[in-house]
Amino acid sequence: MKKLLDHKVGEPVDLFLFIKQSTKGVTQQGSPFMSLVLQDKSGDLEAKLWDTGEEQERLYPAAAIVRVGGEVHEYRGKNQLRIKSIRPAKADEGITMSDLVPSAEKSKEELMEELMQFFFEMKNPQIQRITRHLIKKHQEAFTMYPAATRNHHDYVSGLLDHVVSMLKLSKAVSDLYPTLNKDLLYSGVILHDIGKVIELSGPVAAHYTVEGNLLGHISIMVTEISKAADELDISGEEVMLLQHMVLSHHGKEEWGSPKRPMLPEAEMLHYIDNIDAKMNMLNRAMSKTEPGEFSERIFPLENRSFYKPTFE
Amino acid sequence: MKKLLDHKVGEPVDLFLFIKQSTKGVTQQGSPFMSLVLQDKSGDLEAKLWDTGEEQERLYPAAAIVRVGGEVHEYRGKNQLRIKSIRPAKADEGITMSDLVPSAEKSKEELMEELMQFFFEMKNPQIQRITRHLIKKHQEAFTMYPAATRNHHDYVSGLLDHVVSMLKLSKAVSDLYPTLNKDLLYSGVILHDIGKVIELSGPVAAHYTVEGNLLGHISIMVTEISKAADELDISGEEVMLLQHMVLSHHGKEEWGSPKRPMLPEAEMLHYIDNIDAKMNMLNRAMSKTEPGEFSERIFPLENRSFYKPTFE
Amino acid sequence: MKKLLDHKVGEPVDLFLFIKQSTKGVTQQGSPFMSLVLQDKSGDLEAKLWDTGEEQERLYPAAAIVRVGGEVHEYRGKNQLRIKSIRPAKADEGITMSDLVPSAEKSKEELMEELMQFFFEMKNPQIQRITRHLIKKHQEAFTMYPAATRNHHDYVSGLLDHVVSMLKLSKAVSDLYPTLNKDLLYSGVILHDIGKVIELSGPVAAHYTVEGNLLGHISIMVTEISKAADELDISGEEVMLLQHMVLSHHGKEEWGSPKRPMLPEAEMLHYIDNIDAKMNMLNRAMSKTEPGEFSERIFPLENRSFYKPTFE
Amino acid sequence: MKKLLDHKVGEPVDLFLFIKQSTKGVTQQGSPFMSLVLQDKSGDLEAKLWDTGEEQERLYPAAAIVRVGGEVHEYRGKNQLRIKSIRPAKADEGITMSDLVPSAEKSKEELMEELMQFFFEMKNPQIQRITRHLIKKHQEAFTMYPAATRNHHDYVSGLLDHVVSMLKLSKAVSDLYPTLNKDLLYSGVILHDIGKVIELSGPVAAHYTVEGNLLGHISIMVTEISKAADELDISGEEVMLLQHMVLSHHGKEEWGSPKRPMLPEAEMLHYIDNIDAKMNMLNRAMSKTEPGEFSERIFPLENRSFYKPTFE
Amino acid sequence: MKKLLDHKVGEPVDLFLFIKQSTKGVTQQGSPFMSLVLQDKSGDLEAKLWDTGEEQERLYPAAAIVRVGGEVHEYRGKNQLRIKSIRPAKADEGITMSDLVPSAEKSKEELMEELMQFFFEMKNPQIQRITRHLIKKHQEAFTMYPAATRNHHDYVSGLLDHVVSMLKLSKAVSDLYPTLNKDLLYSGVILHDIGKVIELSGPVAAHYTVEGNLLGHISIMVTEISKAADELDISGEEVMLLQHMVLSHHGKEEWGSPKRPMLPEAEMLHYIDNIDAKMNMLNRAMSKTEPGEFSERIFPLENRSFYKPTFE
Amino acid sequence: MKKLLDHKVGEPVDLFLFIKQSTKGVTQQGSPFMSLVLQDKSGDLEAKLWDTGEEQERLYPAAAIVRVGGEVHEYRGKNQLRIKSIRPAKADEGITMSDLVPSAEKSKEELMEELMQFFFEMKNPQIQRITRHLIKKHQEAFTMYPAATRNHHDYVSGLLDHVVSMLKLSKAVSDLYPTLNKDLLYSGVILHDIGKVIELSGPVAAHYTVEGNLLGHISIMVTEISKAADELDISGEEVMLLQHMVLSHHGKEEWGSPKRPMLPEAEMLHYIDNIDAKMNMLNRAMSKTEPGEFSERIFPLENRSFYKPTFE
Repeated sequence: MKKLLDHKVGEPVDLFLFIKQSTKGVTQQGSPFMSLVLQDKSGDLEAKLWDTGEEQERLYPAAAIVRVGGEVHEYRGKNQLRIKSIRPAKADEGITMSDLVPSAEKSKEELMEELMQFFFEMKNPQIQRITRHLIKKHQEAFTMYPAATRNHHDYVSGLLDHVVSMLKLSKAVSDLYPTLNKDLLYSGVILHDIGKVIELSGPVAAHYTVEGNLLGHISIMVTEISKAADELDISGEEVMLLQHMVLSHHGKEEWGSPKRPMLPEAEMLHYIDNIDAKMNMLNRAMSKTEPGEFSERIFPLENRSFYKPTFE
Repeated sequence: MKKLLDHKVGEPVDLFLFIKQSTKGVTQQGSPFMSLVLQDKSGDLEAKLWDTGEEQERLYPAAAIVRVGGEVHEYRGKNQLRIKSIRPAKADEGITMSDLVPSAEKSKEELMEELMQFFFEMKNPQIQRITRHLIKKHQEAFTMYPAATRNHHDYVSGLLDHVVSMLKLSKAVSDLYPTLNKDLLYSGVILHDIGKVIELSGPVAAHYTVEGNLLGHISIMVTEISKAADELDISGEEVMLLQHMVLSHHGKEEWGSPKRPMLPEAEMLHYIDNIDAKMNMLNRAMSKTEPGEFSERIFPLENRSFYKPTFE
Repeated sequence: MKKLLDHKVGEPVDLFLFIKQSTKGVTQQGSPFMSLVLQDKSGDLEAKLWDTGEEQERLYPAAAIVRVGGEVHEYRGKNQLRIKSIRPAKADEGITMSDLVPSAEKSKEELMEELMQFFFEMKNPQIQRITRHLIKKHQEAFTMYPAATRNHHDYVSGLLDHVVSMLKLSKAVSDLYPTLNKDLLYSGVILHDIGKVIELSGPVAAHYTVEGNLLGHISIMVTEISKAADELDISGEEVMLLQHMVLSHHGKEEWGSPKRPMLPEAEMLHYIDNIDAKMNMLNRAMSKTEPGEFSERIFPLENRSFYKPTFE
Repeated sequence: MKKLLDHKVGEPVDLFLFIKQSTKGVTQQGSPFMSLVLQDKSGDLEAKLWDTGEEQERLYPAAAIVRVGGEVHEYRGKNQLRIKSIRPAKADEGITMSDLVPSAEKSKEELMEELMQFFFEMKNPQIQRITRHLIKKHQEAFTMYPAATRNHHDYVSGLLDHVVSMLKLSKAVSDLYPTLNKDLLYSGVILHDIGKVIELSGPVAAHYTVEGNLLGHISIMVTEISKAADELDISGEEVMLLQHMVLSHHGKEEWGSPKRPMLPEAEMLHYIDNIDAKMNMLNRAMSKTEPGEFSERIFPLENRSFYKPTFE
Repeated sequence: MKKLLDHKVGEPVDLFLFIKQSTKGVTQQGSPFMSLVLQDKSGDLEAKLWDTGEEQERLYPAAAIVRVGGEVHEYRGKNQLRIKSIRPAKADEGITMSDLVPSAEKSKEELMEELMQFFFEMKNPQIQRITRHLIKKHQEAFTMYPAATRNHHDYVSGLLDHVVSMLKLSKAVSDLYPTLNKDLLYSGVILHDIGKVIELSGPVAAHYTVEGNLLGHISIMVTEISKAADELDISGEEVMLLQHMVLSHHGKEEWGSPKRPMLPEAEMLHYIDNIDAKMNMLNRAMSKTEPGEFSERIFPLENRSFYKPTFE
Repeated sequence: MKKLLDHKVGEPVDLFLFIKQSTKGVTQQGSPFMSLVLQDKSGDLEAKLWDTGEEQERLYPAAAIVRVGGEVHEYRGKNQLRIKSIRPAKADEGITMSDLVPSAEKSKEELMEELMQFFFEMKNPQIQRITRHLIKKHQEAFTMYPAATRNHHDYVSGLLDHVVSMLKLSKAVSDLYPTLNKDLLYSGVILHDIGKVIELSGPVAAHYTVEGNLLGHISIMVTEISKAADELDISGEEVMLLQHMVLSHHGKEEWGSPKRPMLPEAEMLHYIDNIDAKMNMLNRAMSKTEPGEFSERIFPLENRSFYKPTFE
């Protein structure tokens, strides 16, 4: 069955959709409206409900499931959904959030299994114990959260998907550059963004928590590593080096890392994080682009458009 | 008695001095030499020992006390000491490090007493308990360390001196802007740089520790606050806000704060820290400048020179 | 009685208001409208009058007083006023501009009296004479003008209010750092922005004059100090140093100061100006923020939001 | 006769030279020396006098004339003069400063005559009167000073030479772009740097005065224009526009102009000033470069080297 | 007869116009509309057609000629055209594109004749042959294309107009600075932007081609010069230097020149290109500005407004 | 046998060495000396020859082989060689350049064979033909040149070594991100720096050619691709895309790429080039660092030092 993003401009839509975001607004002229972000597994579109009132606000909050009729149209170079009819899904229609919310292609169980394989290549017991401890402590959220609220891996289990992809890339570069310490690199990859499970509010419709705003996932995680070491009664340089891996993974002070990488593995973690995030965005943008055309602009890639060749 | 910095260019010097820094070097032509930073309470000067060998290296390490004869001369706009004679101080000459190393004008006991007065204006018990706990935990070092290895408050008890001066400024601005929360501001002032006791190697001849380099005093302290709260069994927003105060006190990401200030008190902490550090540098530079002249260039003030008026 | 900014979103409004700004516009579809900024002492809100014609333009120019019925609503994260009825105030309703235009909490007479007290701490007669001369020359405007057209101290007597607050802060820092020359610092504070009385068009509804645009308040004031010295037949370093205080008070070339501060007092003037302006903005923003929430974004504070703690 | 810069590396030198700069120094090893900048009309070279004492300091101050024997050698990519013999010139040898100090190719009288011709193309009496008044007031210095202490037009009458060259360029662009107002442009060119006669200490061996450091030639000149208008009893927009021409001629705040150009003529003044200064530097550098070689690096041209083609 | 830009706000319009750009859009509420840029020789205005459908899209594509009735109105500080009636021009009305599309004031034949005169001042046969060859190869487009899609010389024959104006400026500066090599400078001026005939899609309604986006006119032209030299069997330094002239004419890497100018002529080419482009924009903006007013903001001049004096 | 870089500070050296660079200099005091860069396969050290004359200049030019006795010492944090004896190698000592000049670990034949394997994974005949043509055209130099004059892969066959390493990384990322086009990516990797064979002067002791300075390897190669396509009679998008791959591989305009990457493969090429260069530098620096120490500062990694953990 045709999903939301499979519809071209002008095509009629009749689908169950998940309300990812719901915001009240008022037009310049003063009429109230609601701005919804509606999604199914194919992705999301913005939509407006005009002349809304208390009833609409009650019926269509974030995280509700609705049945929507309408049409795709284009507004300022981006597709939107024009709503012609909307109603809450009924209990007996049997649609659940997991039918609609996009998630990693593989299940979180598969991804976790892939992840756990990488421990077999690690040797340092301290690093392994801290890493396993922190995975376990946050397992529920770690396997469900997105890696970001938008731009890349912004879907259920996106964080885990991103981590597993980065681990594969880590293995490739460790093979090419054998001086890299796999314990540090793999553990750094696994831990680098776990702080997001505290920084963000949840696996879907995520926003920044107060703690996320005031401390940020990097500082949160540095403290978490310290706590883990205390609980496991581990001391030694490994603790500090893991903290540094997490601390420096944004690469520069102006990107939120209070220290720049000072370990070859930390430098490589920054590169790998960057490549995997950028490839995720590029893949998404290019999949929507026709041969001989330029993609939509990708903001985190300095707002560039990318060209799709006419040959294979 | 005339101290080191009281000597003008060309004046002979005959003093007991403390070796603040001792580095081996080799001239362009290949002869070994030693580069010393010699100090007494008036400040420090660089000096060279030429054609040195193993004996000199053994006799003149950092932290040794020596008797030096020589002359002040100027090299590239900065004064240096030309050594004509040097020998280790003898035990029976009775000179100790504390006779030579510059320190805050007030004793650490006086400064601590001044500091403790500020607790009387604080109301929030959680904030007070965490702050007192951390002062106590690091008291020995907190009362002895400099605030920085150079530029400002770089003397014994310099950190405590800086903190007390900032507390006085905090009180003045809190009186002028009564919406500021004194608990947060005072505690932020007290805690903001305690991480330096781990970042730096000691109260004199300080260099950066490995942990200081890889984590930095800001992240070290954020974790310390978390540990203090755990040990005191304190939870609640206060912990996170104190962490944020410390985290953001450099003001900008590019200056090492992973988050910019998001509390009015955090913004003010950044201003006060800046003003007190800059005034310390300005006072030092202007005290060496004659009326009608420009001071030496002050690097952290964008390398500016400051003018001393000819009138009072 | 409830003032304009005391109304929450959705609440009906029925008030006399002052038209701070009145601009004609045309919608995307080509219909004429008017964009008004309406204010009373509590602050101002934007409002639109739709489908306007010549009559409306005649009735509702800037500086008119009107009676408005309507409702507060939110548009793109900022509150606006939806006008349902509007008419000019009638003469016999007895409402005057001074009833509606926000001004400093203290009267200009009180503020001037506070300001004059600071002369008692000054010693240098040349500096005092020039300063008094310029206050007197521009007294009418100096006591009425805002310090800026928006952001901080943007109300009647805002400039004087800002200056008096800065003088108090100057006194506090002069006490803490006694090397600062009070004559230079106090006079610098008093004179630094007087050029605004030429840069801006008036005490209310102020815009930039041509001279303000082409020369700016800094260069205008540097010339004014020179003229004052000529008229008072004062020569000597004091004139040049006061010019430098004004010239450098924005702190950096890119912020409009053709020279950076080269006097400790000039450096401090820059800090004090900055702190007082920022605290004014922070106070305003935090007063509208609920505990546990973030404030609106404050553009001149790098567009940051500030958090209001849940505890006192 | 061969002048100083006509000597190649390795060639012996025996010349009367003018001491442009004389600075005492001390070597790393503590021996005193003097660093001289020696010049004749062909340009200048640095030279060292080793193991100097009071006698040398007395004999070889700045502005002395000396007879030097030695050799040109190259040090770190720049030519220097190695002094083998030096003595003060004797009165009866009849060498005067004007024999040795480089100056504009044309005499100041010729240059002034060329300059005065441009008034015939001007129409606005106010602009002409202010401009003539300021030329007259500072005529002595205006015709003698360099345009800068180094880099471009740094010779006697360099300022006037620069102005006349810029006037010719102004005429060319005014002919091409006839909308430009010649009164504003010519007057702006003439006045733009006159403030340098107060900013700098004199026509030779110039350094920055205290007033030059604290106020700068731009602000000095803005005040001068205001005074001229007062003395001539001229009011009207012309005064402000001339002030703006001078104020904005550095083009950007970060280059010392508190306002960017807001008149087409001010924009053009900035371009013309830039072109004439850069061409002066390029001509000097290329004249010392062989075909097929790159010039020395030119610091104000972003430290670039320029290539001299092998063909004419 | 009154042309499009001769109409003031509020004035009725009834004109034949050329559709420079035609874009489909959808309002926030979901209604389709078309956004047209309509022009005649006086310039262009934006206009909207509301509630459009397939017929309108067929009738009003880019490059169509239409008869439009409507009115000029102002929207956000820029004039627009409100369309009240529109229909395609009829064949028998005899209006052609060249009646409506703005072009250089002189004919392309006149401009080419002016351009060819400059060859008489050139001496180097290799440079001349390459330059003539490339003019001839691209003559059709070179004489018709604009110099840019907007901002400056964005009209038919705009590129040629820009080049001829630059040549005149080149002659003026070559006369003032006779060390400049006219062969290199004139040829650089002529060739510098010919790559635009491949970078852009055509002389009117131009957009960037794929090759223009991926390679840019600078790299395209560098290759063209190499091909020309091959075809003419010319080798020698001249080829490389012409490539460098083109390569470096944007002046800085961040402006798209992979190398900064390293020939005095290349430096001058950059200045001349800049001046001529900026004067073209300034003239256009000032011609629409009343005395005593500021112009509209000019984006490529750092968004500045320029003031038009009240006197001549 | 112990090689040059195997010697610690203080250890005596007696080795045949290759003169990589030979520069004449003069000390501050005017004595001539020579500055040599001496190397064997382990790397290079700087050394000085004091009080040199014509004979020394004749005996010790760049590319000579010498026998040197001396000692390693440290100068400003970098090791140098103090020469105690030096003489030219004798013919009958049988030492050749290839015994001394560092080169890739594998032979150029092995490396070329590895490279050629990657063609088996490519499918597009046009891309393959252009790539093979250009390898063949420049094969001699391509297999011998370094990838840079310093910093990374600055040894014989360094360019080829770098390319092969990048190809392996390309394969790994292509496997992980299968949307990447291997033809474009592999060919881009192979061609991206071939222009260096024209930009640099030779495989050893390389400096920039005039063409290298004025055009740069990027623009040189873009033209080379165009010529190859002409010679092979290939047209079509592939040519332009290969040009874009080369053109954009520095990633940003300010780093010398006139266009930023606009193909996913071009983006990846930039990442891979960066990673392989940085890992080469990191490996070299870390190999000289003891556990528990920081490496020397690495300039192209923003002058950072990297830490070597104390555990394996």
